[in-house]
Amino acid sequence: MQHNAIRELYSKALFQQVGESVAKVVLRYLPYEMMDGGMVDVTGKPRAFREAIAEGRIRLRKETLRLIREGRVRKGDVFTTARVAGVMACKRTSEIIPLCHPIPITYVNVYFEVEELDVVARAHVKTRAETGVEMEALTAVMASLLTIWDMVKEYEKDSRGQYPETTIHSVKVLRKIREGEQH
Amino acid sequence: MQHNAIRELYSKALFQQVGESVAKVVLRYLPYEMMDGGMVDVTGKPRAFREAIAEGRIRLRKETLRLIREGRVRKGDVFTTARVAGVMACKRTSEIIPLCHPIPITYVNVYFEVEELDVVARAHVKTRAETGVEMEALTAVMASLLTIWDMVKEYEKDSRGQYPETTIHSVKVLRKIREGEQH
Amino acid sequence: MQHNAIRELYSKALFQQVGESVAKVVLRYLPYEMMDGGMVDVTGKPRAFREAIAEGRIRLRKETLRLIREGRVRKGDVFTTARVAGVMACKRTSEIIPLCHPIPITYVNVYFEVEELDVVARAHVKTRAETGVEMEALTAVMASLLTIWDMVKEYEKDSRGQYPETTIHSVKVLRKIREGEQH
Amino acid sequence: MQHNAIRELYSKALFQQVGESVAKVVLRYLPYEMMDGGMVDVTGKPRAFREAIAEGRIRLRKETLRLIREGRVRKGDVFTTARVAGVMACKRTSEIIPLCHPIPITYVNVYFEVEELDVVARAHVKTRAETGVEMEALTAVMASLLTIWDMVKEYEKDSRGQYPETTIHSVKVLRKIREGEQH
Amino acid sequence: MQHNAIRELYSKALFQQVGESVAKVVLRYLPYEMMDGGMVDVTGKPRAFREAIAEGRIRLRKETLRLIREGRVRKGDVFTTARVAGVMACKRTSEIIPLCHPIPITYVNVYFEVEELDVVARAHVKTRAETGVEMEALTAVMASLLTIWDMVKEYEKDSRGQYPETTIHSVKVLRKIREGEQH
Amino acid sequence: MQHNAIRELYSKALFQQVGESVAKVVLRYLPYEMMDGGMVDVTGKPRAFREAIAEGRIRLRKETLRLIREGRVRKGDVFTTARVAGVMACKRTSEIIPLCHPIPITYVNVYFEVEELDVVARAHVKTRAETGVEMEALTAVMASLLTIWDMVKEYEKDSRGQYPETTIHSVKVLRKIREGEQH
Repeated sequence: MQHNAIRELYSKALFQQVGESVAKVVLRYLPYEMMDGGMVDVTGKPRAFREAIAEGRIRLRKETLRLIREGRVRKGDVFTTARVAGVMACKRTSEIIPLCHPIPITYVNVYFEVEELDVVARAHVKTRAETGVEMEALTAVMASLLTIWDMVKEYEKDSRGQYPETTIHSVKVLRKIREGEQH
Repeated sequence: MQHNAIRELYSKALFQQVGESVAKVVLRYLPYEMMDGGMVDVTGKPRAFREAIAEGRIRLRKETLRLIREGRVRKGDVFTTARVAGVMACKRTSEIIPLCHPIPITYVNVYFEVEELDVVARAHVKTRAETGVEMEALTAVMASLLTIWDMVKEYEKDSRGQYPETTIHSVKVLRKIREGEQH
Repeated sequence: MQHNAIRELYSKALFQQVGESVAKVVLRYLPYEMMDGGMVDVTGKPRAFREAIAEGRIRLRKETLRLIREGRVRKGDVFTTARVAGVMACKRTSEIIPLCHPIPITYVNVYFEVEELDVVARAHVKTRAETGVEMEALTAVMASLLTIWDMVKEYEKDSRGQYPETTIHSVKVLRKIREGEQH
Repeated sequence: MQHNAIRELYSKALFQQVGESVAKVVLRYLPYEMMDGGMVDVTGKPRAFREAIAEGRIRLRKETLRLIREGRVRKGDVFTTARVAGVMACKRTSEIIPLCHPIPITYVNVYFEVEELDVVARAHVKTRAETGVEMEALTAVMASLLTIWDMVKEYEKDSRGQYPETTIHSVKVLRKIREGEQH
Repeated sequence: MQHNAIRELYSKALFQQVGESVAKVVLRYLPYEMMDGGMVDVTGKPRAFREAIAEGRIRLRKETLRLIREGRVRKGDVFTTARVAGVMACKRTSEIIPLCHPIPITYVNVYFEVEELDVVARAHVKTRAETGVEMEALTAVMASLLTIWDMVKEYEKDSRGQYPETTIHSVKVLRKIREGEQH
Repeated sequence: MQHNAIRELYSKALFQQVGESVAKVVLRYLPYEMMDGGMVDVTGKPRAFREAIAEGRIRLRKETLRLIREGRVRKGDVFTTARVAGVMACKRTSEIIPLCHPIPITYVNVYFEVEELDVVARAHVKTRAETGVEMEALTAVMASLLTIWDMVKEYEKDSRGQYPETTIHSVKVLRKIREGEQH
């Protein structure tokens, strides 16, 4: 059966345009693999330990990287502020990404390295839940990198107030782990 | 005078370890350009029309791009969902980036294009405020791209559940505009 | 010119597929009345005093209405709790309704009356802004009515845990006012 | 024993105006059925699969319904936007309704139908938790209907900027299900 | 006229139980000084530069204070983390305190000092708005002090997991300033 | 091994500057007691019933206390409003305190007493989670006390608009309980 047909069937069941007994089966037992649209139904999935590591980079001017390395950025401690932003955004991932499930994060941290051209951010997230945390790790990385940008704005702007060089790039999931299931 | 000395003076004024009259001058009139740390003080800045356009890309598999182009992604309408996510995150930028000021956004939208290797997102943000909206435009782009990732997860995972190719990249501010001041 | 054509032009201008000078005009000066999609652009609109009164009703069992009238609902003071919920949701309207602008609410309150069959909630909202507050007033009404429902759940459920009678209805905007503009 | 007496006893126990051993019993083991006020204590309740379907309607002008049916509403795709709004509000129900518990939603979606006079929204919510999700389903319906209103404002206003016909009504819980308990 | 009488009149006007012309006067022009209940109506008040400094203290064990002073707290940089928490909570004051107006904060920072028995936090907040920012400054102080507590929990707990000494105290507004009005 | 060495090792493992097998051990099994920085990793901890009672006081003028006692505060019902504020803030503790885990609160309430010089607030919080709820109870107390302050501002200000007497103090955790573990 094709996606559109199944979506229609689900919709009909929801609006009770099929018999009660059909509706019950469709609404409750239709596997998501056959269903269509919206948030994935993870109701029946077992809880498991899940983990993800994501990474991203922000390209900055050499002078800016030097100021960060020497701890002389005027707006304050760049990495502690960016880490807090990443941790807090991570916990609110399901408010930022519409179809993400709310997940009880049990660990999240973000670490940073200053390279020759970039600052690298790596986020490590853990949970015990029905679904994975790669979007949570990516959200932590994103919020951290945006916070770094915000903290070094004045060093990255050119004379016309533009950002010709600043770029966030290479944002990816490095590892996603799922261990033994657990009820 | 150097940053650390000014930061210390401000702190002393705040804790009233200098005379009342000195404290008053330091706390109220010390120009931010001389001050140090934390949120930029924009209290005295005039309101102006401000605008920013930011852009970012997500690299996806060709098969995924085809599904998006043909509107056949199982989780639903990718671009409308990503646009709503971008618009809603944009309005909450100051909750995600610690030192951003709350800004009364008067317009925001996000547009998308499917290219050969990437989906491109462009966010356009306007306001009438004391400070610019480039972080708001970047936040809209980020939330939109993360939402696209979330919606096509199942097509991007390899057999081990990893994302070997998916990458967010080339996130930058294209234009920042500030027009005539206005009280 | 039709909607789709204009939407396409705007999109082309945003992606710089038209000349710089055309892009500038389209992105900045195209009146919203001609534009298409997403949040309305209110950047250029003058600030004015704006006000809205919205109303809604919740149908409850007579016994429940009696308990409310006599202040004997187990979960506590129904109207104060519902009022606080309405006021707080009103301030966050732009987080609940995707295309609403963030508005600096200057007054909001919700009042209640117990009628023969219903509780009526009326919300009164004021601001000084570029756009109206009817969605804010409706959001206050909705949050208040949902809170009332939540507080009297145990008296409305039948023996199978269902709510055969409870209904929210007649939610409408009673008055929307806009007074003299103000810069 | 009556409500007020029990509320008073609980309060006394909390403020240690009764002996330590009495306080311990009252604070820990007094069944909620005897207690009074505030959030229901679900600490000891078993987790179960729970589900709810709620529905609501918005009365719109025939011309507006036609525009929705034909996908020609200027602000964009009405149902995808309303669905996203419903899904996102659903996940934040406990931030909108004061005495609701935070619930780890495992599935939520909202479907729409255009009838002769109304748009109908149906929300379907699932979880595995200590308490039901009917308020979550109602919140999804409400946010979806408010979003529809917001998207068709310009077609519903009369010449004086008022909404003489637009009405949200018939918001109710269609079904609430609780299946086998699970620890 | 007494409070209750005015509250009743306002309520009657809202529910149109008085004539249209009386209702209009009451709803629009009744000065707040005579009105009753809920959020203060600041719609007609002029915008002015406003500022507040608030302070609070947390009593900690000497050993904990030493670890803070030496930057050896295991959970990381206490003051940067507490400052970020204070700044972020400050911007969301109107989501935490029900009857607070949303205020466009133009500056906020929190500074810390380690004394013999306490850590002192001072928050400095500025805006240009219709109403003052003392609640915003107090909220920043509170969030900062709670964050400090959270970061040093392991050093403050006794062998039974209790906090016999940790105490937040002396939270007050040091100065509230309002300068020349401005439209 | 000292904190800094372990923090460095963890960071190296995260950035894969050690061998894959070492990285795996460090990232997954290094006990938190040896690790450093950021949110405590509670992934492997068993769920248990947990409970906390926290308390705080606000010193108010005798006249203000009398108005509260007599229910004559102009802004409305002080204790119901403060209770709702406390309950709602409690549920969002992990959004206010950066390194707090999101916790599924199963019960929270706040009770008040008027003493000779102070109003006392006591919050009682319960959950079934991997970590305790004392920060949640403290957050409820804080939001409740700030809300009381906000509601009686007009009675506490002196002729210069200052608050010479109002003080929040004696905020502490009275009891923290953890019972039998539960998977």
